[in-house]
This record gives sequence, C-alpha cells and structure tokens, in this order.
Amino acid sequence: MQALYKTIDYIRTNYPDQFIIADAKRGDIGNTSKMYAESFFGEMNVDSVTVAPYMGQDSVTPFLGHDGKWVILLALTSNKGADDFQYIKDPEGTPLYQNVLRKSLEWGGNADNMMYVVGATRAEMLSDIRRTVPDSFLLVPGIGAQGGSLADVCKYGMNSKCGLIVNSSRAIIYADSTENFASVARAKAAEVQKEMSAYLK
Amino acid sequence: MQALYKTIDYIRTNYPDQFIIADAKRGDIGNTSKMYAESFFGEMNVDSVTVAPYMGQDSVTPFLGHDGKWVILLALTSNKGADDFQYIKDPEGTPLYQNVLRKSLEWGGNADNMMYVVGATRAEMLSDIRRTVPDSFLLVPGIGAQGGSLADVCKYGMNSKCGLIVNSSRAIIYADSTENFASVARAKAAEVQKEMSAYLK
Repeated sequence: MQALYKTIDYIRTNYPDQFIIADAKRGDIGNTSKMYAESFFGEMNVDSVTVAPYMGQDSVTPFLGHDGKWVILLALTSNKGADDFQYIKDPEGTPLYQNVLRKSLEWGGNADNMMYVVGATRAEMLSDIRRTVPDSFLLVPGIGAQGGSLADVCKYGMNSKCGLIVNSSRAIIYADSTENFASVARAKAAEVQKEMSAYLK
Repeated sequence: MQALYKTIDYIRTNYPDQFIIADAKRGDIGNTSKMYAESFFGEMNVDSVTVAPYMGQDSVTPFLGHDGKWVILLALTSNKGADDFQYIKDPEGTPLYQNVLRKSLEWGGNADNMMYVVGATRAEMLSDIRRTVPDSFLLVPGIGAQGGSLADVCKYGMNSKCGLIVNSSRAIIYADSTENFASVARAKAAEVQKEMSAYLK
C-alpha cells in the first residue's frame, strides 16, 4: 500500500492535472461501499473508482456525492466473460448492460459524476450505448493487449465533446521487463497517445 | 494491512480449524483475478473469497483450482439493491441469479470448490436455489443487523449435511463501542451460535 500512496502522491505533486482512476471494481452493501468510497476518495485521494453493478443501487450510490469525484460503472466489459450475463435480454428485449445504464440514471448518476466502462472489444455496441448515455464519458479498456480497435471506438463512441477515456494498461506496463522499462513504456504510451490525437482533429 | 495479516495469523495459530472468508467481492479480467487469487489464497492465506459474477467466466475461474480453497460467488445478495438486476428474467423466465448459479456449474464450480451468497433476507428463494445447487454450501448473510430470519433460512435452505454458513457481522462487531467490547461481542456471538445449534438438532 505504501508504494501505491507514494505513486499517487508523486502524480499529484508533479502532474496535478492528471485524472487518477482506481480500477478496483468494488461494489458491496451500502455500509461497506461507503467505507470503500471514503478510503478511495478520501484517504487515497483518487479521482474515480470503477464499481461493479451486480448488487444494485445501494452498492453504487455511496460512491456518488463526493465533490469532484467520479463513479465508473461497469456496463459492457472488454473480457470474453462479458458474454455470460451482460447481454442477457429481459422479456422486453433489453440486455442487462442497458438495464444497468438506465437504472444508474435513476440513482443520481449523470454526466458529471458517473462514467461507464465499455470495452473496446465491444465497439459495435457503442452506438446503442450512446443512445442511452449521450453525454457521459465512457472509459474504454481493451485497446492494446486485448486487441480492440481505436478507430472503431472513435467511430461509434465519440460524442461532440469526445466523451471517451481510452485506456491501455498492459501494452504499456508490460512493454519491457528490463532496465529499459521507463523509456520503452514511455515510447509505447506516446505511440498510443499519437494515434488517439489523430482522431481528435 | 499489517493488522489484517496479524489477525489472520492469530486465528491460524490459535484456532486452526476456523474457516476464514475474505468478503472482498472481487471480479476482474482474468489476468487481474489471477493476481487477486494469488494474493488472497497465497499471501493472505484465507480459505475463501467472495466473487462478483458480472464479468463472467474468466473473471471467476482464476479463483478456482487452488487446492482446498473456495470461491463464494454472489448469487442473490441480502441488500435492497439486489432487486435491481438479480431478479431480472430472461425470455425463458429464468432470473439472473439462477443464470449465475447455472453458468457457474459449467465453469468447474462444484460443491467442493464453490459456494454461493444467498441473503437471509431472501429466504423464500432458497427452495428455488436448492433445486439448482442441492449439495453446495450457501453463505447466508443478513441475519442480525439486516433483519433476516434464521428459522426461515434453515427451513428453506438446509440440506442433509446442513449446507449453510450463516453469517452475522455487524450485530457482533458493532455490539459495543466501549472497553467492554470483547465480552459483549463474545456474548452476542454465543447467542447467535446457540440459536443456530438449536436448528441443527
């Protein structure tokens, strides 16, 4: 934990504009989610936490209402197992991930305090998701190690203000395991950043 | 974390037969779930971890296959928010929590490596759940602070070998906030234990 706090402190001090995401995928009974929220937003001082929706409203809302902090709710994840439950349709034909999006909007979730995880490997579903949450940021993992297409993500997911946070983790942090790590990881990150900026023109 | 390791070490040394549950509700892409499993089962040396099913198979299976260790998968939780998604029926009328139970049996989950969380506040659903997982242990929170009925849990959830782990946390750990905590909490735990043993006769 000490290394984690030191890393966050380093970023806060040297790069104060960076948005820090704790990709912790929490979600528990209200009492426990409240404690998690205090730990992440207070003690750890990150800007956002990813939250799993399975336990519903009272497992998610304790993460809301922390000034300037964000909930990033799992909607449609990038992994293969997303197929198991997230696409299951209700009798009206609405898939679970859409029910998660819709319900979250009834919980006080809005474009200023909640974003959604939508995997880059599910880019073809982004148009459908944009109809439900047109103004919200989407956190998009799955570029890089998981093989998602940045072109498709931008084509289907971008809104008038961009509205995308595209994440590449393993392609950068596992780019090199020698003493050259810092420079190789930097080059890899710069490469992704360059590709992204092309789509923002 | 230091206090946590010391507590686990104390229990392992003094009460080696106790079954230790990390009620951590993890669940992430395979690579990350694998690391969580190594952390909980290896480094932390607990017997079981609660796992959230939203991300599907590859988020759960890395927790399986650790000799003598258990996955406790969220099926039907005790909190109010369980109503939001866990009861949503598919077009064949099967609710999500049943789809979770059924799928988990295809992932290598069996009565020797996987249990399920079923809230005591959902006791009326236990007969339905027992049809799908007749031999599995069920971890039942919601007795005590959350108001579930132990009588109902036993009536609907017990199998020929009992098959229940009934959990009371807040009613015990928040039983007293003075220096009398140890004795008051002990008395409260003994009270629940006595009530339970009556149902086992």
